[in-house]
Amino acid sequence: MYTLFFSPNACSLASHIALAESGLPYEIKWVKFADKEQQSEAYLKINPKGRVPALATDRGVITESVAILAFIAQAAPEAKLAPLDDPFLFGKMQAFNAYIASTVHVAYAHWRRGYRWADNQSSFDDMAAKAPKVFHDCFQVIEDSLLEGPYVLGETYSVADAYLYLMTDWLANMKLDRADFPKVNAHYERVRQRPAVQRAIAEQAAATAV
Amino acid sequence: MYTLFFSPNACSLASHIALAESGLPYEIKWVKFADKEQQSEAYLKINPKGRVPALATDRGVITESVAILAFIAQAAPEAKLAPLDDPFLFGKMQAFNAYIASTVHVAYAHWRRGYRWADNQSSFDDMAAKAPKVFHDCFQVIEDSLLEGPYVLGETYSVADAYLYLMTDWLANMKLDRADFPKVNAHYERVRQRPAVQRAIAEQAAATAV
Ligand SMILES: N[C@@H](CCC(=O)N[C@@H](CS)C(=O)NCC(=O)O)C(=O)O
Ligand SMILES: N[C@@H](CCC(=O)N[C@@H](CS)C(=O)NCC(=O)O)C(=O)O
Repeated sequence: MYTLFFSPNACSLASHIALAESGLPYEIKWVKFADKEQQSEAYLKINPKGRVPALATDRGVITESVAILAFIAQAAPEAKLAPLDDPFLFGKMQAFNAYIASTVHVAYAHWRRGYRWADNQSSFDDMAAKAPKVFHDCFQVIEDSLLEGPYVLGETYSVADAYLYLMTDWLANMKLDRADFPKVNAHYERVRQRPAVQRAIAEQAAATAV
Repeated sequence: MYTLFFSPNACSLASHIALAESGLPYEIKWVKFADKEQQSEAYLKINPKGRVPALATDRGVITESVAILAFIAQAAPEAKLAPLDDPFLFGKMQAFNAYIASTVHVAYAHWRRGYRWADNQSSFDDMAAKAPKVFHDCFQVIEDSLLEGPYVLGETYSVADAYLYLMTDWLANMKLDRADFPKVNAHYERVRQRPAVQRAIAEQAAATAV
C-alpha cells in the first residue's frame, strides 16, 4: 500500500494521477496548508522539506515530483507509464519533468511565495507582477520545443503528461489563457478525458470535502 | 561519442564528473556565457532553454542535470553510478537530485540572477542578501536529513554525489563555510579525491585556457 501526501490542486496532483493510472494500491492523505500542517513535527518526519508530494512506501518515503513520477512508472511496469527499456527516451521524459520542477513550477511559485527568496513586500509585489510573464514564457518553450504532441513524448502517454496537465491547469489561476498555446491546450483537453485523471480529481475532492 | 555543453564550474560540472566516471567516450564544448553564447541561435537549436548542461547523443540532445545524470548512469551500467536494479533506491537518488535542481540550485540562482523573477534593482538586492541564508538552510536539510553518509545513498557512490560535490563547492562563492556542515564537508573532501573528479576539473581548465 502506498500513501500519497497531497494538497488539493497542488503539484501533488500529478503524482496522484500517476498512481491512479498505475493500478498500484494507494490511499491519499490531505496535508492541510491552512493549518500549516506541512510544517508540523509529524509531517516533517515524513518529509523534512515540509512540502507535498511525499509518497510513503513499505521501504520508506520518496519525495519530489520528478522522483515520485518515475518511481510509480518503475513500480508498475505493466501500466507502461514511462519508456523504461529505453534510457534515451527515459532521459527525455526526465528532462521534461525536471524542467517543470526546476523552472516552470519555480516560476509559478514566485507569484505567491516570494518570501522564500526575499524579505520585502516590494520584492514580493515585483515577483508577483512578473510571474505570469515568466510562466507564460515557459509555456511558450513547451509549446514551441518540448511537447512533441499529442503527448509529451509523442505517440505514447507517460507520467510527464500528468505533470504537464497539472501545470497547464495552473495557467487559469494566473488568468493566463490556455488557448495561447494550441498544442498545450489540445494536450490538456485530451489528458483531462482520461479516467485516471477524473478519478484523481474526484478522490481529492472527496478527501477534502467537509 | 557524447558531447557535453558546459560552462566552467557551472552545474554542468556534475554531469562532466559523471561522464568521467562512466567510461563512456565524450568530449566537452565550452558555451561562453561572457559572449552570451547560451542565447545564440546555434546553441538554442541544441537547448531551446538557453542553459547548460546539454548532452548531445547520437539520438538527440538530453537537457537538465537530473535527467543527464540518470541517463549517464543508465548508459554505462557497468560503472555502477546508480542503483539501477532497485526502483526504491533509484527513487531516493532521483529525489535527492531533484531537490538540488528544484530548490538548492534555485536558491543559489537568486544570488546573481534575480532578474529571472523580478524587474527592480531593489528586488535583486533583497534576493542577493537573502540567498546565502536560504542556501545555508538547504545545506542544513542535507546535513541533518538527506545525506546518509559517507555517500548520499549510504555506502555506495552514485551520480548524486557528483551533484552534491558541485553544489557544496559553490558554498565558498557565497562566503559560506563548509565546516558548518561536518557530514557535507567530509563528503566533499572524499569525493574530491576521486580520479574522475580531478579529471573533469583538469579537462574543463584545459578547455577554457586561453
Ligand atoms: N520540488 C518539489 C516542490 C514541492 C512543492 O513546492 N510543493 C508545494 C505545493 S505545489 C508545497 O508543498 N508548498 C507548501 C509550502 O510551501 O509550505 C517537487 O517538485 O515535488
Ligand atoms: N534546471 C537546469 C538549470 C540549468 C542552469 O540554470 N544552468 C546555468 C548554469 S549553472 C546556466 O546555464 N545559466 C546561464 C543563464 O542563465 O543564462 C539544470 O538543472 O540543468
